[in-house]
Amino acid sequence: MKDVLIFSEEVAQAKAEQKPIVALESTIISHGMPYPENVQTAKDVEQIIRDRGAVPATIAILNGKIKIGLTEEELEQLGTSRDVEKVSRRDLPYVVAMKKHGATTVAATMICAQMAGIRVFATGGIGGVHRGAEQTMDISADLQELARTNVAVVCAGAKSILDLGLTLEYLETHGVPVIGHQTDVLPAFYSRTSPFHVDYRLDSAADIARFIETKWALGLQGGIVVANPVPEEDELEESYITAIIEQALAEAEQQHITGKAVTPFLLDRVKTLTGGKSLQANIALVKNNAALAADLARELS
Amino acid sequence: MKDVLIFSEEVAQAKAEQKPIVALESTIISHGMPYPENVQTAKDVEQIIRDRGAVPATIAILNGKIKIGLTEEELEQLGTSRDVEKVSRRDLPYVVAMKKHGATTVAATMICAQMAGIRVFATGGIGGVHRGAEQTMDISADLQELARTNVAVVCAGAKSILDLGLTLEYLETHGVPVIGHQTDVLPAFYSRTSPFHVDYRLDSAADIARFIETKWALGLQGGIVVANPVPEEDELEESYITAIIEQALAEAEQQHITGKAVTPFLLDRVKTLTGGKSLQANIALVKNNAALAADLARELS
Amino acid sequence: MKDVLIFSEEVAQAKAEQKPIVALESTIISHGMPYPENVQTAKDVEQIIRDRGAVPATIAILNGKIKIGLTEEELEQLGTSRDVEKVSRRDLPYVVAMKKHGATTVAATMICAQMAGIRVFATGGIGGVHRGAEQTMDISADLQELARTNVAVVCAGAKSILDLGLTLEYLETHGVPVIGHQTDVLPAFYSRTSPFHVDYRLDSAADIARFIETKWALGLQGGIVVANPVPEEDELEESYITAIIEQALAEAEQQHITGKAVTPFLLDRVKTLTGGKSLQANIALVKNNAALAADLARELS
Ligand SMILES: [Mn+2]
Ligand SMILES: [Mn+2]
Ligand SMILES: [Mn+2]
Repeated sequence: MKDVLIFSEEVAQAKAEQKPIVALESTIISHGMPYPENVQTAKDVEQIIRDRGAVPATIAILNGKIKIGLTEEELEQLGTSRDVEKVSRRDLPYVVAMKKHGATTVAATMICAQMAGIRVFATGGIGGVHRGAEQTMDISADLQELARTNVAVVCAGAKSILDLGLTLEYLETHGVPVIGHQTDVLPAFYSRTSPFHVDYRLDSAADIARFIETKWALGLQGGIVVANPVPEEDELEESYITAIIEQALAEAEQQHITGKAVTPFLLDRVKTLTGGKSLQANIALVKNNAALAADLARELS
Repeated sequence: MKDVLIFSEEVAQAKAEQKPIVALESTIISHGMPYPENVQTAKDVEQIIRDRGAVPATIAILNGKIKIGLTEEELEQLGTSRDVEKVSRRDLPYVVAMKKHGATTVAATMICAQMAGIRVFATGGIGGVHRGAEQTMDISADLQELARTNVAVVCAGAKSILDLGLTLEYLETHGVPVIGHQTDVLPAFYSRTSPFHVDYRLDSAADIARFIETKWALGLQGGIVVANPVPEEDELEESYITAIIEQALAEAEQQHITGKAVTPFLLDRVKTLTGGKSLQANIALVKNNAALAADLARELS
Repeated sequence: MKDVLIFSEEVAQAKAEQKPIVALESTIISHGMPYPENVQTAKDVEQIIRDRGAVPATIAILNGKIKIGLTEEELEQLGTSRDVEKVSRRDLPYVVAMKKHGATTVAATMICAQMAGIRVFATGGIGGVHRGAEQTMDISADLQELARTNVAVVCAGAKSILDLGLTLEYLETHGVPVIGHQTDVLPAFYSRTSPFHVDYRLDSAADIARFIETKWALGLQGGIVVANPVPEEDELEESYITAIIEQALAEAEQQHITGKAVTPFLLDRVKTLTGGKSLQANIALVKNNAALAADLARELS
């Protein structure tokens, strides 16, 4: 399988020189944002990582090859192509075996990062336990991946369309630490706050690195959630976004939207009801996470 | 523990010659069918595998020894004996340590197959998330086994007395792929259809083998569900069997049957209400799965 | 990380001489009992283990070092200090990295015992699935630890403020065996009985050792629950303690106590409503478990 994992020139060189590397996911490019904002944001995020002294490794599957680091042409291809599968753990063998294109979720990016020997990964938000999962058992595979794969995930928390309280319970049961970067409370993606506490607040990349190194040195398998609040100037306030989500939930009920259709409906309504503000916040928080991840990767090397 | 794992002559020779091998479980013999249909079916299923160019390895525990491949006498013993424990992961140490007889469930058969270096296993249906498990947490250990043990399980889906939707959610969370063989929808044991989609449809043993080899070559631990619909001529139609299950559920409620007693009650009512038809379908689908498993084992070797 | 794991002189010598060793947790000292009963009980428990021919290894984190075996001064420090964190799997890297003090729960004690090469651990009761977890997903990390870490946990079952039925379902799904020592039913901490059956009753330390050795020899990863009922003379009878818990639950509802506040409230009410009797039972059952664990450690070596 060595021939399935293809490093870009930039990442291969970084590995050879033992430079700090930050993994980036690709569903945000193919499924998370419209073109051309998606490709532009991907490039901007990569540049932020370079500017902080680390090397970005955007991860995707192209023609069945797991690419660790994408060229500009490959970024463009991913950002415009229509036949890109969203790839989680269960899907990875399919896109590789059938030589398809795939954009990696948090779970699959963690897997590929670990294969490539990369320990830090920046994303927007992790998946979690969905609202109503007490009945539907709809729980993102990201959480099981965090329980077993040794990658630190820098994110702005989880989207508040999820059930954040249940997500924290699930992570606790599975022994996954949730670190707050300069925050005592779990950020909720668009907003800096939520009603929930993180496990530990750590205020510097150095302290977070020390935590992570200790975890793995002790042989404690699995990931770490590094929750990094969206910058203040880009935040959609907790009360504002909560009201919008509650409205969206009410609409879903009125329109009898159930099952698998609920999450896309909610995400779409949030986008519409916030105007362009949610996209702007999303871009800002991804950049903010990339910067912290670069600092963290430097501290870890 | 080498001395606990006993290969039959036929299987030992197949291993020495690197021939394709298909594991078979034994609860279907001891607990799943009446005598003598159980022993006859077991022999027929083994012969189908031989006729397709692979070697059958029926797995059971006899006097504390894990038998990989049973002689005719051992099949007979298992099919008629009353003191055979039903063995899942948690029970395996007990029957081995206490030198008991045991028939292996899907979970335990996967474990023993992996110990024996066998990668393909044919069964009737896997266990799953039980109806009402949102309240009872009654979830078969088969699903956790699929999450961690590297064996491909060829089955006709899961019995529809289970909650198929929740079963799929649980497998998704744990990254277990569900492949449909020549079907887009999850078969429901007695019927070829259910309201649920498989993750991927693959139409040949060669394609399924490619998927499986890729999964394990990527280091993605765990099993694969290969869902193979019951042959058309033996099917009990979805609407027919659904109505029977709903009747059985209503009867369980009327008779205040709760907890552990529900599943045996439902299975018994289904058997009675379908007349001999459910047994006939069961036998047909097991044979059908054995044939596909043999093809798959050949492709994998 | 070798320098993080510090063996006491007594335990180091026991390891060198391959003597049987029993791990003990420390939350019972720091969070489970008032001073000075906590320190006195810890010493008594250690002595019981020595008197049965094994060596006690109380486990705690002091100044970021994982101590395997505590001196008298360290026991005293742990029993009187106010700044001792309660440490489960997710917390372990924090207290080690930040050089804090920590008392280990069942989960963390299992982890540290495995690191130290100790296979038997005596405690009061394991954590489990909380009442109402169908809604709250509040499930102790102890259960996942039992699913993966190779340590036998001798306990008096789980406290009946938990949902014992759901706890057993969860353990079954994850393949964790629950052995009853001289009992067919799961003991419920203060009482010798509960409405639930154990998986297997084994009546001697030798038989339990045989079970455990077989499990691990078969390569079946994970722990074993050895459920050992509180001695008859110290038991609070099932009907008595059940009535008290039901009263406490009713009070919690009347006083609108919800979420994380419920468990401490219930434990506190049980303590008050049973007078000193629950503390006395707690001490008796821990001693009783230590004795069985010593016997088991002797049999396993
Ligand atoms: Mn989902
Ligand atoms: Mn069950
Ligand atoms: Mn909890």
